[in-house]
Amino acid sequence: MNNQKDKDEFSEPAIKHPSSDELLDVSIIGGGIAGASAAIYTGRYMMKTAVFTALRGGAIIDSTMVENYPGFIRISGYDLMQRVLKQASYYGALIIDAEIKSIEKKEDFFLLKSTTSEEYKSRQIIIATGTHRRRLGLPKEEEFFGKGISHCATCDAFFYKDKIVGVIGGSNTAAFSAMLLSKYASKVYLIYRRDTLRCEPYWRKLLEEDEKVEIIYNANVVELLGDKMLQGVRLDNGASIDLDGLFVEIGSEPSSDLAKSIGVKTDDSGYIIVDEAMRTNVQGVYSAGDVNTASAGLKQLIVGASEGAIAASSAYDFHQRNFKNN
Amino acid sequence: MNNQKDKDEFSEPAIKHPSSDELLDVSIIGGGIAGASAAIYTGRYMMKTAVFTALRGGAIIDSTMVENYPGFIRISGYDLMQRVLKQASYYGALIIDAEIKSIEKKEDFFLLKSTTSEEYKSRQIIIATGTHRRRLGLPKEEEFFGKGISHCATCDAFFYKDKIVGVIGGSNTAAFSAMLLSKYASKVYLIYRRDTLRCEPYWRKLLEEDEKVEIIYNANVVELLGDKMLQGVRLDNGASIDLDGLFVEIGSEPSSDLAKSIGVKTDDSGYIIVDEAMRTNVQGVYSAGDVNTASAGLKQLIVGASEGAIAASSAYDFHQRNFKNN
Repeated sequence: MNNQKDKDEFSEPAIKHPSSDELLDVSIIGGGIAGASAAIYTGRYMMKTAVFTALRGGAIIDSTMVENYPGFIRISGYDLMQRVLKQASYYGALIIDAEIKSIEKKEDFFLLKSTTSEEYKSRQIIIATGTHRRRLGLPKEEEFFGKGISHCATCDAFFYKDKIVGVIGGSNTAAFSAMLLSKYASKVYLIYRRDTLRCEPYWRKLLEEDEKVEIIYNANVVELLGDKMLQGVRLDNGASIDLDGLFVEIGSEPSSDLAKSIGVKTDDSGYIIVDEAMRTNVQGVYSAGDVNTASAGLKQLIVGASEGAIAASSAYDFHQRNFKNN
Repeated sequence: MNNQKDKDEFSEPAIKHPSSDELLDVSIIGGGIAGASAAIYTGRYMMKTAVFTALRGGAIIDSTMVENYPGFIRISGYDLMQRVLKQASYYGALIIDAEIKSIEKKEDFFLLKSTTSEEYKSRQIIIATGTHRRRLGLPKEEEFFGKGISHCATCDAFFYKDKIVGVIGGSNTAAFSAMLLSKYASKVYLIYRRDTLRCEPYWRKLLEEDEKVEIIYNANVVELLGDKMLQGVRLDNGASIDLDGLFVEIGSEPSSDLAKSIGVKTDDSGYIIVDEAMRTNVQGVYSAGDVNTASAGLKQLIVGASEGAIAASSAYDFHQRNFKNN
């Protein structure tokens, strides 16, 4: 794609945007990859579509490099999401910079209210609110994100060839991250607060047998060292470790409170339960992306994009069956 | 992405390719979007990966315009697949231009033979062989593909604003295509060989009520009219219809014979049955893309790409558990 050409040819939408005060066919909550992808599809299905987002692009815009989204050998999260949101807008979706704080089911539509008290009406809803990572809660943590601190080994392991890295956590995800990192890094410290990893035994065995991996039990990181980039950590046992990278794998939490408020069912961890068509238990409400239980739990951009397309197709199918006077 | 920069920076693979005569960790059958996406992931998981393909890029390379792959407002199928295959190669996958004709399960690996009798050994397999569309079997049909003839209304309806189009078929897919096209086109002829559409009643009702849609029953297309582009069709009742586009929706068939030959279960239509992690019933064999039953049956590039990533992650998980001396 030639950027100059993009600008000229695609600056005006090919499908007219709805106005925010008319009855929308579908409202998409969340402007990350899943929501934006859903909007491309619903827009092209000629459904009146709005995307509500407090942060255009979602959490991925903090990632300086994405290498595993098929189509781009290497692209920043920000640039990728600019492209996808522009595409959604081009194909008819209205992007609204607002956070939805409440949804109410009315007779024929859902009533959405934003944090600034604006109201929107929508026939159907796609919830693509993602997850938020648990933080260590330490000074410099936000500042070092993308500058040594990462939450995704599948995404970033590759950048740590022959480097020294740390992983914090004891779950399967933490173990997986440490094992993947050991294929690239020269040394991997796995730092866990308890005296036994809580991951599956086979992961524990792999980790214990891996010469590059050193497990530090009964330890908490209490300080992030470094000036502009992360350079190491200090532990509560007094020790310091020099590090080029630190993978914080202490879990994430789905942003599903809004969904729950309208009766959408979640699993015990709060992830929205969907079927393979991305339908929730509430008629007219779908969910796509990291916030749901689909796709064997794999949290990747390409997976969220696909789930957005599937949710959009399901919403369109329902729309055709129920709202033919479009 | 700047193409010149692509060429300089990414011409040498970042991860070394395996050689085709060593034991491969994973063999991916099919070089379309699902296979290529799987290869990006397995490559980055440091699994020795080969992609076997008779046609680099798969069926989509015939599509002159793809507009609904998130990240590209508009790109040719050929260009998109060039990018994705290059990315797979850059991250360690060996692309082999060969068609696999047989797979044999050995004690510790699968033995693959190509149509030119070369042999390859692989620990695991991802089957991403796609589908082939049923053809009308008329002269000029291949020539007009992408020049007025299409197989995907979701992909191409948009190009027929205020145009006259035909749809051949009577299935749900044909009905869906006709209804979507009626949002763009000025006139839609639905041509079906029987006296009743076989789609669900609600689709039939929508079609019958749509003023733009005219259903022609008991008719077969016997000739494709036009010189370099499709300009119309002639029916077996003698009538001719002027058309700007023709959507052939007479079904498609999964290319699953190779999978069946090693005991992989399919549904009644021949689609490979997978779980949500893209695992088949045969241990070490996965399937991604249009050939399988996943993702509520939605056949879209973005969905295939996601399934490739999921299959790759499942294969990596199995690899870690069983072949730790990688």
